[in-house]
Amino acid sequence: MARSTALSTAEVCTLWVLIGTSIAIVANSFHGDGEPFMVSLAFSLFAFATTYSLIRWLGPSFMKVGLKGKDMAKAKKPEIPETMGAVCAVVYLLLMIAFIPFPFYKDIVAATSGGGNRDVVLHIEHVETGRFLHRFPHNKLASYLSGLLSLQAITLLGIGDDLLDIRWRHKVLIPALGAFPMLVVYFVDFGVTHVVVPLPLQRYFGQIFDLGFLYYVYMASVAIFCPNSINMLAGINGVEVAQSLVIAVLLLLNDLLYLSPFTPYPHPAMDSHLFSIYFLLPFIGVSLALLCHNWYPSKVFVGDTYCYFAGMVFAVVGILGHFSKTLLLLFIPQMFNFLYSCPQLFHIIPCPRHRLPKFNAVTGLLENSVTEWPVPPSPLIATALHLLHRLRLVGIKTNENGEITESTNLTLLNLWILWFGPMKEDRLALSIVLLQTVCGLIALFVRHQMALLVFPADNRSLWAFV
Amino acid sequence: MARSTALSTAEVCTLWVLIGTSIAIVANSFHGDGEPFMVSLAFSLFAFATTYSLIRWLGPSFMKVGLKGKDMAKAKKPEIPETMGAVCAVVYLLLMIAFIPFPFYKDIVAATSGGGNRDVVLHIEHVETGRFLHRFPHNKLASYLSGLLSLQAITLLGIGDDLLDIRWRHKVLIPALGAFPMLVVYFVDFGVTHVVVPLPLQRYFGQIFDLGFLYYVYMASVAIFCPNSINMLAGINGVEVAQSLVIAVLLLLNDLLYLSPFTPYPHPAMDSHLFSIYFLLPFIGVSLALLCHNWYPSKVFVGDTYCYFAGMVFAVVGILGHFSKTLLLLFIPQMFNFLYSCPQLFHIIPCPRHRLPKFNAVTGLLENSVTEWPVPPSPLIATALHLLHRLRLVGIKTNENGEITESTNLTLLNLWILWFGPMKEDRLALSIVLLQTVCGLIALFVRHQMALLVFPADNRSLWAFV
Repeated sequence: MARSTALSTAEVCTLWVLIGTSIAIVANSFHGDGEPFMVSLAFSLFAFATTYSLIRWLGPSFMKVGLKGKDMAKAKKPEIPETMGAVCAVVYLLLMIAFIPFPFYKDIVAATSGGGNRDVVLHIEHVETGRFLHRFPHNKLASYLSGLLSLQAITLLGIGDDLLDIRWRHKVLIPALGAFPMLVVYFVDFGVTHVVVPLPLQRYFGQIFDLGFLYYVYMASVAIFCPNSINMLAGINGVEVAQSLVIAVLLLLNDLLYLSPFTPYPHPAMDSHLFSIYFLLPFIGVSLALLCHNWYPSKVFVGDTYCYFAGMVFAVVGILGHFSKTLLLLFIPQMFNFLYSCPQLFHIIPCPRHRLPKFNAVTGLLENSVTEWPVPPSPLIATALHLLHRLRLVGIKTNENGEITESTNLTLLNLWILWFGPMKEDRLALSIVLLQTVCGLIALFVRHQMALLVFPADNRSLWAFV
Repeated sequence: MARSTALSTAEVCTLWVLIGTSIAIVANSFHGDGEPFMVSLAFSLFAFATTYSLIRWLGPSFMKVGLKGKDMAKAKKPEIPETMGAVCAVVYLLLMIAFIPFPFYKDIVAATSGGGNRDVVLHIEHVETGRFLHRFPHNKLASYLSGLLSLQAITLLGIGDDLLDIRWRHKVLIPALGAFPMLVVYFVDFGVTHVVVPLPLQRYFGQIFDLGFLYYVYMASVAIFCPNSINMLAGINGVEVAQSLVIAVLLLLNDLLYLSPFTPYPHPAMDSHLFSIYFLLPFIGVSLALLCHNWYPSKVFVGDTYCYFAGMVFAVVGILGHFSKTLLLLFIPQMFNFLYSCPQLFHIIPCPRHRLPKFNAVTGLLENSVTEWPVPPSPLIATALHLLHRLRLVGIKTNENGEITESTNLTLLNLWILWFGPMKEDRLALSIVLLQTVCGLIALFVRHQMALLVFPADNRSLWAFV
């Protein structure tokens, strides 16, 4: 398994071109009021290049300290480095910190805050008239920092999880602890817990309803759901990173809808969506670099760290950007996978330690994995399983008495194989990517077209570019 | 080496009393404007109790994943868990995040910031008249968060170092990367780079001098020096934690001098020193808990993670509290150790991988460790070594030709043994603790008494309580 950690000449050239481009863009942004958007794009290229090289270089060191795993879906079951998501996360976090000066340059901070120099308040008119396009005032700095704190916290806890192999019931809490900084700063700094009530419910609750404490429960739930649900739709080469990339790109697309030229400038939600873009672009950079090494056949595993980290990036932009409902619309496959898994998660149906599709060494294809029933299921559960079987939602095997002896594991990956037959690992991963893309695009279309049916106004005027 | 991870009944009772006390204090703080100072004290007790238990419980898990080391200064060379500083750091960080609402309650943030609700500005008069004693405005929130980001970053990088065993020349950069968030936010949010010029130099530079870019270099140097210098005065049971505790307690003492009743209220630097207190109290809690397990004979090692983390706590309070010069005065033993080590660090004198005092299994005492000269030193270095030998600053051995064949390693620990003879490990650690305390107390006295000789005014009116 001794693979070279050196980059090929072609790789070195490409990466240097990327780094050169990014440096050139940043160097050219130091004029006028700077161009945070272009700088973010440059940081994203730089993130790709550094992550790509570091993952290659650090492989042997990770293996040496035991951060490694066997790829069970290959004939030779090779051992490869694990937890490479930690490299992504660290590169991402350092770059996001380096990015702070670009959208939060001190003049504007001093201008709009009570804390800075009051004698430069004349700048504030420039802000309001749009001179400082793509820049943020002081109160957003605390949001940004709290987002970074949450991401750092979840990376730290994720690495702890990958190292110490924490129990399942403790794992669920990791995203909650990670979300903690964001929620605390939200509480201290904004504390807005009002929501706009959908039209059909306005007669009961009024136009605006104060959720109070429940709003924090809702935000915490989003922050717990996103990382865990990605961690759950996992286990075959490339699927964790690829689904995260699809979600990130769709979120980016949604963000761009709020910027000129797609919407009349300046849109009131523009700041939130710029905030989101600045978090997403470098994330796409590091994730693409990881995908290059993690796509079938994987050279590295991503670890729980990556799933937590990716999920928390989405939670941060959704919550701090105030579009968590839109965010959840992009998690339809994950939501389905979670709901579909519930009978096993709550042990109504036996749940083996791993529920991944099974590799058939003879055909080279992935097949359904099953859970065995040591004792036949109770009549109620048996009836339910037979019904699901008829709906093609579960595969079952019965003995001569008609008692169920095994049923397929309830994951989206297994269901896909149940529907379309055994397939190669990369085709399965690609299917999930396509499913994620199609579901997401439909969801975004519905969200912007149909929102007017239940809300008094869509928060962007879509017609501006139709 | 199978030791029980269970806490004894006496330990359980004590820890529950501490936790009960801390909960009672916090519960009683929810009146009027709250009492952040008391809450911080309560968090410190809670931090002690949780860290104490977690270190005990997590030992075997750490050993299992290879985070372990041999204690070479014991007859049996037992293997014990390593990197327990990571537990301290994680408990500390989570508690510091939970603490945010207490000094930064949203009313005051809204009151003093441009970002919040402008309609509650009437509160600002209360602030200025001291109604909100011990509370901070919005601009301090960014400082606080950036301090936490720096601490999280260095913990993350420290764990990476302990795991991957990073090379010495890369290690030095870890604190620089850790300090990065703090410096970036300082740049964006404050950007004050003026310093008060000492009286004798005022004719050349004026009263106030703008260091500009150099001010950031200075801050970065402080942030690099503190963690690395603690990491360098290390290697015997308990010495890393004990020296950090002494520094923390002395800093706390210095902070208290700025609060009523020691100074007429309200002192202009009070906020900075409260900020420092809120960072130091929980640090003292987690460090004391670690010391209980790490003092001679050690049950756990602290790891580089702890040294980086502790040093960065000091750098954060010193830099963001604007008393970095006072901070450096408390690092006299570390500074001496660093300067004394320089000939070996820069390879003027050969430098073995480890320079710890050597354990003599017969006497049970620690003795000087030496570096051997494969070829005799050049005449210049030989002369210097002979001179230092006569000044009792280095021990040397010569062969029959008078050529130096070995010299003692240049660390404070070795020098102490050179002066006072071989001694037991705990006595050596205790000596360093006493040295640190005495140097620190003298430095603080000099700083407050003598500052008036070179500066136009001490920044606190010391005479108020003399």
